[in-house]
Formats: sequence, C-alpha cells, structure tokens
Amino acid sequence: MRTMSLVVVGSVAYDGIETPHGKRERMLGGACTYIALSASYFTKTGIVAVVGDDFEEADRSWLAEKGIDLTGLEHVRGKTFFWAGVYSNDMNDRTTLRTDLNVFADFDPKLPADYASRPYLFLGNIQPGLQRGVQQQMNGVRFVGGDTMNYWIRDTREELLDTIRSWDFLLINDSEARMLSGEYNLRRAAARILKMGPHTLVIKRGEHGAMLFREDTLFMVPGYLLEDVFDPTGAGDCFAGGFVGYLAERGFDLRNGHFDAHELHRAVIYGSVMGSFCCERFGVERFRDLTRAEVDQRFEEFRRFTAF
Amino acid sequence: MRTMSLVVVGSVAYDGIETPHGKRERMLGGACTYIALSASYFTKTGIVAVVGDDFEEADRSWLAEKGIDLTGLEHVRGKTFFWAGVYSNDMNDRTTLRTDLNVFADFDPKLPADYASRPYLFLGNIQPGLQRGVQQQMNGVRFVGGDTMNYWIRDTREELLDTIRSWDFLLINDSEARMLSGEYNLRRAAARILKMGPHTLVIKRGEHGAMLFREDTLFMVPGYLLEDVFDPTGAGDCFAGGFVGYLAERGFDLRNGHFDAHELHRAVIYGSVMGSFCCERFGVERFRDLTRAEVDQRFEEFRRFTAF
Repeated sequence: MRTMSLVVVGSVAYDGIETPHGKRERMLGGACTYIALSASYFTKTGIVAVVGDDFEEADRSWLAEKGIDLTGLEHVRGKTFFWAGVYSNDMNDRTTLRTDLNVFADFDPKLPADYASRPYLFLGNIQPGLQRGVQQQMNGVRFVGGDTMNYWIRDTREELLDTIRSWDFLLINDSEARMLSGEYNLRRAAARILKMGPHTLVIKRGEHGAMLFREDTLFMVPGYLLEDVFDPTGAGDCFAGGFVGYLAERGFDLRNGHFDAHELHRAVIYGSVMGSFCCERFGVERFRDLTRAEVDQRFEEFRRFTAF
Repeated sequence: MRTMSLVVVGSVAYDGIETPHGKRERMLGGACTYIALSASYFTKTGIVAVVGDDFEEADRSWLAEKGIDLTGLEHVRGKTFFWAGVYSNDMNDRTTLRTDLNVFADFDPKLPADYASRPYLFLGNIQPGLQRGVQQQMNGVRFVGGDTMNYWIRDTREELLDTIRSWDFLLINDSEARMLSGEYNLRRAAARILKMGPHTLVIKRGEHGAMLFREDTLFMVPGYLLEDVFDPTGAGDCFAGGFVGYLAERGFDLRNGHFDAHELHRAVIYGSVMGSFCCERFGVERFRDLTRAEVDQRFEEFRRFTAF
C-alpha cells in the first residue's frame, strides 16, 4: 500500500483545554496530530512537523503504534507549540487563553527523501508559503489539498491564492469561505472559490455538517447528532484526515481520467464520521480505542439517518 | 380525495416586512396562510381562521383559486391581525416592530360541520387550549399534530402538555425543543419530548435543515442551499404544510397498522422543499407561480445532494 500513502504537514502541539465536561492542563494536540490519527484508519500516513525537546516519548511511541510514519517529525531544541483555550457552555465558541508558538515559530518543513514520491498530500493550516514549499519538494503527487485560516486569508492573501491555485481541493469552514470569497451566501462563495484553482471545495460547518462543491455538483451532509459533545477540539482536523485518508485508501485520482463523484461524497461522510468520534472524548483520547469497525458502523449509521 | 383532506388552524394576517432585499408595507401573511398554501400542493386543505373587514377580496379569491377551502375562514368586525418586522443583514435574526392582534385576539376557532370528519389535522401555533378545542370538534382524525412557540411553552406549560399528549407529531424549532425539554443537546431534548405524547418529533433548524425523531429512528436532512434568500418569513410554516400535506396525499396513517418510516422521511424532504421555495420571494409571492412539477424537481435535487 506504500503507493497509496499520504503525507500530512502541520502542527504537533500540546493543548490545555477546558470544556463544560472538564479540564486538561496539557495533552497531545495540534492539527497535524489529529489529521494523521484520523487518516491512519484508512491509509499509511507520514507526518511533517516539528516538536521541542519536551516532547514526550510516550506520545511519540503511541503515534508510532498507530502506524503513523514519524520520519518527518523533526526534533529541535526548545519547547513544543503550546495552545490553551476554554469553550463556552454550548461549546459553539472558544476563547484562546495562550498561544506559545515556541519551536513552531521557525518551522521550516523538510521532507524526508522517502516521502517525496508519495501520491497524496494534505497541507495543514500553516503559512501558505511553507505549504507551497512542501508541495514543491514532492514529485508525482496525484491528489493535493489543504486547509487555511482567517489569519492567512487576511494578511497573506496573494501568497495564499498563489498556493491554492494548484490544489485539487480546499477544505475550510464556512466563515473562512465567506472571508476568502467576499460572499456571505455559501453557494456564491463556493462558485468564487472554485475559480481560484481547486476543483473541489469542502466547507465544514461544525455541528451543522459539511458541503462539497464542484463546478457541476453539490453534496451536503448534516452533522452527526452526538448525545454528548465532550470536546470539539480537533474535530475539523479529524474531518480532514477522514476525507483525504479515505480517498487515499480508495486510490482516488482525478488525473488518471477515472472519476466517481460518489467517492468524494463518501469521503465527506468518512470525514464527518471521524470528526464526530473526535468530540466524544477529550483531545485525541477517543483514538486510543477507536476501531475501524466502529468507523464503518457509523458510516452506515449516516446512511440510515439520511436515506429517504 | 375528500377522505384524504387536511384541516389547518392558525392565523391569517397582514405582514409588513423589511429584508436586505427590500420592503413590503402590507402583504398577505399568517402561519395558517403559509401552511395551507404549501399543503395545497399535495392535498385538499381547509382552513380555520379569522379575519377582519379589511381583508381584501383579492386575497380571498386567490386562496380560493389555489384550491383552499375557505368555509372555515370567519369574517368579523374589526381589523385583521397585523405584524411587522425587520430582518438582520444575514437574515438569521428578526426584530418585531409591531404586533396588532386585532380580531385574532378573540379568535375562537369554530369548525364548519363539513370539516369535522376530515382525517388530517394541523394545529398551527395558537393558544394550546384553543388547539385542543379544535381537536375535540373533530371526529375520526387519523393523524394530528401541530406547532407551538416559546410563549406557550413558558407561560401555559401545563395546558400545552395536556394538549400535545394526544398528538401524533410535534413540529417545532431547535430553541423551542430546548425550552420544552429543558435539555440543550437535541438528541436528549428529543428523547424527553417523545415521552410527552407525540410519537414523532420534527425539529426545524432553519437554514441548517431538519431532523425527525421517533423512539427508534432518527432522520436528518441538511437545508437547501439557496443562492438568494429573499425573505425567510413563513418558511417554517411552509415546511409544516409540505410535511403534513405530503402525508395526507399519501394517506399516511399509523392507526391502521401499516407503516413506512421512509414516508415520514420523504415528508421531511417535502417540508424542506416547500420551505426553500418560500424564501425565494417576498411573503407568499413564490406560490403565485410555483408548480407541483417544480416541487417534485427540487425533491429529486435533494436526493442528488444527499446520496452517497
């Protein structure tokens, strides 16, 4: 399965999180961690990230046990990226209490030689120039896309537009789509963004589900209705991991001429499935015992919930 | 088709509405009007409502042309219920500018003899005691349900609980479901409400779609993605009309022993379809030229948008 494998770039961090269900002072987090954990249920996944010398051996070995390729996890002097935040009572808002970039401030992603020929690439939310740099170190990529955030959309717009021009897909949330396009209405926003390069746009709407737009198709899925949302941290990243991980597993590839739009739809469902599991416990804890059988079971639940 | 016909009770009104797309000083409105217009695409619909002597003949004759049975539209001395409101720029909020109950203040619904044996009944949002009074005037009802609002949930809770106990379905929005159940989480809220009497609960979430709960099933549909939301007034009522109208058209009936859950799911889709059309123009204007063929076409669009 090496040829179907995925490279993920982004942050590995420690998070301090408080939700109405409790508090964790310091636990493994970071977008790259969530994306890779989620994608690892579908495909061989290698990460490109940086951590400091405070990075715990237990965390490293757990990620390795999950089958994640850590060749591209760089260790440097200093402290690992730390973020702390607190969620509102309904968990629809969160306030950042602390952001210590630490070693992440100078992150200069270096691709292990072994990664360069892998066919799937997900560029997590980092500075657009760095995303482009990683893409340029790859050869033979068959499906590439990524995430971004309000900060890059506002402050490095031209660089971002240059970066996403060659992407297959962009995966952002509704407020980012509005900001990037300058359109409030999501159908209009999507039409504008699809002119910026990516042929596929996925808009995540948190508890309200997700939408996939292509020039000629629209697909929508409602959010999974959890009985308890324990901690929504990382849910969007787990969505990304499920989405691109499933496509990598299936060998989905637009450049070969064969194309099944339903595979993209199913990737959105697997994204939703992984995002929903993420919320069931604090941080990455749900992935300690989550099985692929449970993942496929929830996929089928989505079918039952939406069939008519 | 007389045996499959529907009775709708609620307000017929004039509305003054301002949205970012424009303004109307006075146009036909009221929950009963929207519900009946929407349901009339599916089944013979008779209304029970009251208007004043300022009610326009043109409005009356248009409703009659749409096939709505106006035998139960009482005309009394005074002015018709008038409501005015203004929407926020994103149309997710509205501010009431004026509520003149006028003749609606003393509304005492009287069922025409001819209505009493009709099998489907939708009790629009009026005082729960009045809803119950109407239900008691019916004989042989096979499927009954209705709507309510924050005001009745808060101020006449016991009366409301007495009223909905014998309903087949309750159709409310998410904040009303939270208020009625005392649970924020919608899955828990639904579980509580399903113990109050109705075996079927539909929760409307506006642009985010709708959910149908029964003891053993859950069905979810995302909102239709309009390119322009012109005026959301009445969309929830049109959802109700599409939902119950479709079930009446199909002769859906739980009391006969036969039961197809997918019919309830399709009713939620038809509700969503009718709600989406409602938003495309001011007030009831979209129903001036909307055809059943367009309705069925959008139903199929929902299938394409959600299939995977």
